[in-house]
Amino acid sequence: MTLHCYAVIFTSQRSSGDDDAYQAMAQRMEVLARTMPGFIDIESVRDSTGLGITVSYWADLPSISAWRAYGEHLAAQQLGRETWYAWFKLRICKVESSREFPS
Amino acid sequence: MTLHCYAVIFTSQRSSGDDDAYQAMAQRMEVLARTMPGFIDIESVRDSTGLGITVSYWADLPSISAWRAYGEHLAAQQLGRETWYAWFKLRICKVESSREFPS
Repeated sequence: MTLHCYAVIFTSQRSSGDDDAYQAMAQRMEVLARTMPGFIDIESVRDSTGLGITVSYWADLPSISAWRAYGEHLAAQQLGRETWYAWFKLRICKVESSREFPS
Repeated sequence: MTLHCYAVIFTSQRSSGDDDAYQAMAQRMEVLARTMPGFIDIESVRDSTGLGITVSYWADLPSISAWRAYGEHLAAQQLGRETWYAWFKLRICKVESSREFPS
């Protein structure tokens, strides 16, 4: 993990909805994100209650802004608010330190 | 969410192990963390494959250091490396912006 990169923490609660359609869009968004300039990595977990945390890592803030404004992603964001999420929280953070096990 | 607080992103893969003991310790650590000075919030998700993301939010870096060095938490960290986690990644980040839906 590059230090001084940025992390976008997306914590969300799924509402009831079409899970296959959601899964397809979520996978498509991950594939798309990986093609965006400045993309570094993504980690995503959702449990059986529909609570999920996705963290994506980016080289800088302009890369995050560009991804946020990307057409197909904008459409997904709108569907998210209208259909898929009961609530979500989104935080943009600067990574200050990083360590791993095994190191 | 207070701006300019800090987020600790803990991404981990459980190894096989005693799930009841793990759950008990994980719950105990969350209860303890909530009593620590500077603690703000915690969000935690683990899926059926054992992949988990826990994000805790803290007022400042000294609060995070104090929690990391807290005796009962140190013991849990050692058990984590020895027994519970195949791998983990830990990032400390400064929260730069935050938004929620519904707003």
